[in-house]
Amino acid sequence: MELLERTIAEIGELDQSIMEQAKVRLDNLTKPVGSLGDLEKLAIKLAGIRGELYPDFNQKVHIVMAGDHGVAGEGVSAFPQEVTTQMVHNFINNGAAINVLAAEVGAELRVVDIGMIDTIDDQTLIQKKIKNGTDNMVYGPAMTEIEAVRALEVGIEVAHKAIDEGANLISTGEVGIGNTTPSSAILAVLSDLDLKEIVGIGTGLDSKGLNNKINTIEKAIKTNTPDPQNALDILAKVGGLEIAGMAGVMLGAASRNTPVILDGLISTAAALIASQLSPELRDYLIPSHKSSEPGHIKIYEKLGLEPFIDLKMRLGEGTGAVLAIPFVEASISILKNMATFEEAGVSQG
Amino acid sequence: MELLERTIAEIGELDQSIMEQAKVRLDNLTKPVGSLGDLEKLAIKLAGIRGELYPDFNQKVHIVMAGDHGVAGEGVSAFPQEVTTQMVHNFINNGAAINVLAAEVGAELRVVDIGMIDTIDDQTLIQKKIKNGTDNMVYGPAMTEIEAVRALEVGIEVAHKAIDEGANLISTGEVGIGNTTPSSAILAVLSDLDLKEIVGIGTGLDSKGLNNKINTIEKAIKTNTPDPQNALDILAKVGGLEIAGMAGVMLGAASRNTPVILDGLISTAAALIASQLSPELRDYLIPSHKSSEPGHIKIYEKLGLEPFIDLKMRLGEGTGAVLAIPFVEASISILKNMATFEEAGVSQG
Repeated sequence: MELLERTIAEIGELDQSIMEQAKVRLDNLTKPVGSLGDLEKLAIKLAGIRGELYPDFNQKVHIVMAGDHGVAGEGVSAFPQEVTTQMVHNFINNGAAINVLAAEVGAELRVVDIGMIDTIDDQTLIQKKIKNGTDNMVYGPAMTEIEAVRALEVGIEVAHKAIDEGANLISTGEVGIGNTTPSSAILAVLSDLDLKEIVGIGTGLDSKGLNNKINTIEKAIKTNTPDPQNALDILAKVGGLEIAGMAGVMLGAASRNTPVILDGLISTAAALIASQLSPELRDYLIPSHKSSEPGHIKIYEKLGLEPFIDLKMRLGEGTGAVLAIPFVEASISILKNMATFEEAGVSQG
Repeated sequence: MELLERTIAEIGELDQSIMEQAKVRLDNLTKPVGSLGDLEKLAIKLAGIRGELYPDFNQKVHIVMAGDHGVAGEGVSAFPQEVTTQMVHNFINNGAAINVLAAEVGAELRVVDIGMIDTIDDQTLIQKKIKNGTDNMVYGPAMTEIEAVRALEVGIEVAHKAIDEGANLISTGEVGIGNTTPSSAILAVLSDLDLKEIVGIGTGLDSKGLNNKINTIEKAIKTNTPDPQNALDILAKVGGLEIAGMAGVMLGAASRNTPVILDGLISTAAALIASQLSPELRDYLIPSHKSSEPGHIKIYEKLGLEPFIDLKMRLGEGTGAVLAIPFVEASISILKNMATFEEAGVSQG
């Protein structure tokens, strides 16, 4: 608990003075004021997070948290539970979508076993298992509050280690068969929305499977009655180990003035938990894509963020998050490298 | 006219057999079928355009067409007309947003004077002036049909030269003070939409300026009565030289099996004209961002395309188009480099 509390205490406000400098400079560059839209807002935010006018994002680390879910036993996923382990093998062997996309944008991939049922003895996998998958939340809490705190702290540790080794931009991803179910449950507890508005097909359920998923979430919430005011209680009762780990990564990154890119439903559900633990966190979160899970955009709205990519993706792993990295780099390049009206001798409007 | 007719005749159908191969492979890669959404559709389309399963997009050329507009005299822009020339100087001196963003994504920038009022004597500027700006369309046609055809052919020539020199991916951009006005006029002629639904603030008009712009377009359409069935007639009467040039670039790229990335309102207005000249063209067009011009998404709908970036940009120059280049590359990397279920030993859903 000490690491979690210390980390939360370390998350401060963005550097307003640098942000003001960035805004003044952007308004003087050879383009109509504000005409690069959210790319300009992104540049200002990134400068504010780093406390530098022209931050460098030359060391990008993409962290994938892997965990299993007892609730998978309720048939809430189109894929069997062993796919979590199989996909982690695939990450290690460089064959998954996230390997390809992370390489494409120059991000280093780090995969963490925070709670897989199986154990993979491979030195490239970061071994941080809390337990062998969560318990089935239909019958009781997914994990204890002590386990939830420990999983958050694993995320903090992994983020801090990456930053200590030079990372200046972190993106988040996950793998865990069944994990859109706890993610949707978290949103349901933290909103007044009907489950039918929130719950999607995940990796590809049919309509019968979707109804079963909705009923399963209803049961889990009824059994556990998580307290909407208590993020740790929600996380322990209807969350997941990799969700906690991702929330920890976000807190760990923010505590070291490092921007962290969100991905799909699971990542933003983790952000909901993390931003309840630290309201200042939101300023450090960078949106990416809007997935085809209906709950995803609802969480963005709650976080006060707008996604800027819409490719109708629903894969996870952080595939949407890494696709936002070129925008992060482009926004700073605009801020740094464009000519001003004065330099270029261009008339202002 | 001969080059235009020959080019249109050369635009054929995509390679259906390669597209089928790409689809089969994508469905066997280690991800839920279709879970990379529009990125998968993009990969299939690109393979079909190139006629290769794994096309290489290692030579990207971004073409910016520069032209002036007689209608700028009606006060339809927030910027004075001399800014067209000033911005072309800025392109030459590497100071504009498009210089920065094209460099960021590894695209070579080629700027074409297809109809600026001024002439800039610089060897890095491609000199293809048809005339010194269009005529004011409020009082008559913006140009003759012969000039419109010649401007289309300039676009074809520039695209063909780039492709002859190795380009395998082309993106489109423009500069021309006042050019959202003819672009909106083209959409108005080709749709049943009310001008109030179409016309936006361009580079930054106030509400009085916006009303003046709407009235100006109304007058131009009333004066010229362009024939909605005749793309050349529309282009000559209420179009622009750089709009014609961009339409020509699209036709030229498609005639050589080269994908061409659209940008904002002006680029998609050019695509409307070009796809009326050649219905097959649409298959070669790659969408990019949705701009904050209200007419832009309406044109995408007419073209049957969906933008996948939303950064609320309204700058032009092709700044949105080049931001789509990383997605083009990512889509092919997915198709080529991911492991199949069989290779990775992953169970299918």
